Amino acid sequence: MNSNAVRQIIEEGNRKFGAAAAGKDYAGMAAFYTDDAKLLPPDAPIVSGRKAIEDFWRTAANALGLTGVMLKTIDLEVTGDMACEVGEADLQLSSGQARVKYLVVWLRGGDGEWRLHRDIWNSMPAS
Amino acid sequence: MNSNAVRQIIEEGNRKFGAAAAGKDYAGMAAFYTDDAKLLPPDAPIVSGRKAIEDFWRTAANALGLTGVMLKTIDLEVTGDMACEVGEADLQLSSGQARVKYLVVWLRGGDGEWRLHRDIWNSMPAS
Repeated sequence: MNSNAVRQIIEEGNRKFGAAAAGKDYAGMAAFYTDDAKLLPPDAPIVSGRKAIEDFWRTAANALGLTGVMLKTIDLEVTGDMACEVGEADLQLSSGQARVKYLVVWLRGGDGEWRLHRDIWNSMPAS
Repeated sequence: MNSNAVRQIIEEGNRKFGAAAAGKDYAGMAAFYTDDAKLLPPDAPIVSGRKAIEDFWRTAANALGLTGVMLKTIDLEVTGDMACEVGEADLQLSSGQARVKYLVVWLRGGDGEWRLHRDIWNSMPAS
């Protein structure tokens, strides 16, 4: 599978992920992750597994007033069934807009679907 | 190359990386990265390329009084020449000890060496 094709799939996945976030569909967000995914949110322990990730997003979105996630891929490298993506995200929060940068490792499952397997982000400098 | 063999190589690389940090050998730290590596430090822009990464570590280590880095691999998954590592790091700073968690994507180069290609971390919750 060539890198351009994977990039299109992943960018489309990111749009759908953002739409799920905007729609407060936390099970929908979690469905983009592998069963044994790990999420590494700032100032929090590692969150392991799809169900725990769903709970994390529900709790965090409610706490922060998250109403939108816009993901932008900066670069993507693909090796077989693993891809690593560097990107930036704009988050719409009740406190205003926040920008973060992220690293996501994607895996292609036996069903051919690409899913987030490792997901970590941190803050950009105050502008 | 089986995953256990790669894990041993990467854990040994992490020990040497920590030794370079303790020895204030910033060129030595940078040598563990690919030429076109990206570093994503918290509250900072993306740092691209080995030379910029060397400068980042020198500046950050001096600013924070960094005297030690102890890296601990939590899990490692290998696909061909790409590996993704989740881990925790204890940093010795002039202000005391700090614990972070990280995600590193390693690549194996044409010379057979595994190097850090993408490196991001964020803070653990205050304990």
